[in-house]
Amino acid sequence: MIDAGSQVRGSIEAGRRLAEICLGGLGTVSIVPTGPVASWPYSVVVHTSDPVLACLGSQYAGWSLADETGDSGFFALGSGPGRAVAVVEELYKELGYHDSADKTVLVLESASAPPASVVAKVAEATKLRPEDLTFIYAPTQSLAGSTQVVARVLEVALHKAHTVGFDLHAILDGIGSAPLSPPHPDFIKAMGRTNDAIIYGGRVQLFVDADDADAKQLAEQLPSTSSSDHGSPFAEIFSKVNGDFYKIDGALFSPAEAIVTSVRTGSTFRGGRLEPSLVDASFS
Amino acid sequence: MIDAGSQVRGSIEAGRRLAEICLGGLGTVSIVPTGPVASWPYSVVVHTSDPVLACLGSQYAGWSLADETGDSGFFALGSGPGRAVAVVEELYKELGYHDSADKTVLVLESASAPPASVVAKVAEATKLRPEDLTFIYAPTQSLAGSTQVVARVLEVALHKAHTVGFDLHAILDGIGSAPLSPPHPDFIKAMGRTNDAIIYGGRVQLFVDADDADAKQLAEQLPSTSSSDHGSPFAEIFSKVNGDFYKIDGALFSPAEAIVTSVRTGSTFRGGRLEPSLVDASFS
Amino acid sequence: MIDAGSQVRGSIEAGRRLAEICLGGLGTVSIVPTGPVASWPYSVVVHTSDPVLACLGSQYAGWSLADETGDSGFFALGSGPGRAVAVVEELYKELGYHDSADKTVLVLESASAPPASVVAKVAEATKLRPEDLTFIYAPTQSLAGSTQVVARVLEVALHKAHTVGFDLHAILDGIGSAPLSPPHPDFIKAMGRTNDAIIYGGRVQLFVDADDADAKQLAEQLPSTSSSDHGSPFAEIFSKVNGDFYKIDGALFSPAEAIVTSVRTGSTFRGGRLEPSLVDASFS
Repeated sequence: MIDAGSQVRGSIEAGRRLAEICLGGLGTVSIVPTGPVASWPYSVVVHTSDPVLACLGSQYAGWSLADETGDSGFFALGSGPGRAVAVVEELYKELGYHDSADKTVLVLESASAPPASVVAKVAEATKLRPEDLTFIYAPTQSLAGSTQVVARVLEVALHKAHTVGFDLHAILDGIGSAPLSPPHPDFIKAMGRTNDAIIYGGRVQLFVDADDADAKQLAEQLPSTSSSDHGSPFAEIFSKVNGDFYKIDGALFSPAEAIVTSVRTGSTFRGGRLEPSLVDASFS
Repeated sequence: MIDAGSQVRGSIEAGRRLAEICLGGLGTVSIVPTGPVASWPYSVVVHTSDPVLACLGSQYAGWSLADETGDSGFFALGSGPGRAVAVVEELYKELGYHDSADKTVLVLESASAPPASVVAKVAEATKLRPEDLTFIYAPTQSLAGSTQVVARVLEVALHKAHTVGFDLHAILDGIGSAPLSPPHPDFIKAMGRTNDAIIYGGRVQLFVDADDADAKQLAEQLPSTSSSDHGSPFAEIFSKVNGDFYKIDGALFSPAEAIVTSVRTGSTFRGGRLEPSLVDASFS
Repeated sequence: MIDAGSQVRGSIEAGRRLAEICLGGLGTVSIVPTGPVASWPYSVVVHTSDPVLACLGSQYAGWSLADETGDSGFFALGSGPGRAVAVVEELYKELGYHDSADKTVLVLESASAPPASVVAKVAEATKLRPEDLTFIYAPTQSLAGSTQVVARVLEVALHKAHTVGFDLHAILDGIGSAPLSPPHPDFIKAMGRTNDAIIYGGRVQLFVDADDADAKQLAEQLPSTSSSDHGSPFAEIFSKVNGDFYKIDGALFSPAEAIVTSVRTGSTFRGGRLEPSLVDASFS
């Protein structure tokens, strides 16, 4: 159990490393002094040459880990390489991928360590002993937590590409950047800011093997502007639906701006737009 | 034989590593989220503290490797550390440098592996056995190929400094950046884009030990604006001369903008200018 | 004794490594192609998740090392991890920190190696043998010297936070960037430029555990704009006080712009402003 921001302070660097662990070592995450939003210059950059496997096969927080037998009320979404060992998610059928490993790691956006029942569930699914599992957790409110969530700017683009039905195998390379969101002690506001960093301040470029019509459509469908909920800071939207996450239009969870380059035709298509004033409204 | 982008997909990261190999390990190449051209934000940065040796002694694609005895029609320009072991180019007399090595590597901007006759030629020139030679190749059209060519933004500045007669030993340090050009399946267009990334979107800063007159002259002579061919995307220029490379003004092959700092006097001189609209015209 | 820029040329990369050594390995220093000042794009970035220990406990040039017994006239301010082994400075009482080590290193902004009397003084204070001490020196006028001084952009912010009485233990994380200042052969001008890179071109973001009133006050007090001497290139100010360093308002030695984020409240406060025209006046 590694606490990266709950009882310990943690740091932006801890979040950067968490993000690289989430990517299964298949990409790099850097902190840079300039990025998409001028007034929040320090930014996160994610680059992977295997974006589908790195982002969807590993980084995506897709494994629902609830304490079903205990009474802790623990719930977190598991992220990282352990997912591809467990392959309990439907997604892996589409990816056609699974890992075998002697040891593995899961990253949890959580303020507490997973209880024994969750560890047992992961051990069973991965066919590994509990002592061969590492869990790293940090709450959204922490420096490490907010950094590792903003580092999902490329992953949410991949996830949305998947949702709109784009052929994942056609996505060859990807880069994303988004401003480091300032942590907030309130969970809803902290979550709002990490989402807004991506939704209103995130920019991705995908390199795809597709014809112009498909690449153009992807560029149009990918950004958060395609969502009917686009236009307010995330915490406000969340409050409007009374905290019912599933009432929010899923299309909102994507970068502000998308650049899609077809290596088949050489054309580049663009969609969405940065919304620096909404980033300001959210971060301030 | 390492295929970095011909039969395999390759990646931007493969191109980044290719570029560092081209520099003989004497410099770093990074992919960053902001650079000289706002509309093509993801950029390549090259930094070396031994720019003459790294760029001209190693990275420069100066070794003409044609299949002279076979009938493959193979032709490529060899780049990378193997050049300094072979020292068959005139340039090495001026550099006063040669390497000895038990093994070496050459990088080829090529869609195919070199044929046996070329391997034999390299083995003979380097006095190494074929099994001690590594060839890495990627076509200009590939992600790796385009990335490693754009990473020549500093090298072309060094080469032009050499051409205009600036004392190479006076060049102490150098940094360059240019936008990542989107690959194009057509060779001419792909080549055009990698050139335009540098010619219209590239920026270098050189630190020289020279008096003000020489540093100022270098800043004026260095950029692509000094060329009579400046002003159109490279593929158009290439087409105007009916594909006869040698009819293009050699002065065109240089960065858009040059900043030259004399460490002898403390003065900084500037030349050229970025041409974002020409980058757009080329990349779109 | 390692000469990084006196009798040898040195390089920007040498300065980058010097800066990381100054930080005691507790932070990273990078050279990037875009930063706070558009006309001097190549910049230095410093990031550390332990800013107090890295910057004040190690990087701060706080150990006065004069040749007291000899007649060399040598004087330099010692920087780097050796300071925390010697703990001769008052500052360490406040930091509540000291290191023990078998070997250590000090970095000196100096054109010459320290004489035997200074080595003996350091050996005595650190309780180490002279052969277990490494001294790295580079003058302000050199590429390495100017780079490592500009990399103090975060350290001067920490030092000023300390001066204005902000609780150091409340500073959790920090990032800073500033343009690479062009070296100048004249010591006063070289020193002026490295200072101006920070004073008029430097930007920091600190993450603090403080209430809004304290975070706001820090953001207002931190930048160089709070100084009565703000407004002219440093070399001019230095000349106006006839080179008497101690007549310059200490509040000047700080970054141009400060962003202070309270992780306790989620609020961000800003102070100061970049002064690109003063950077130009200084660097040109």
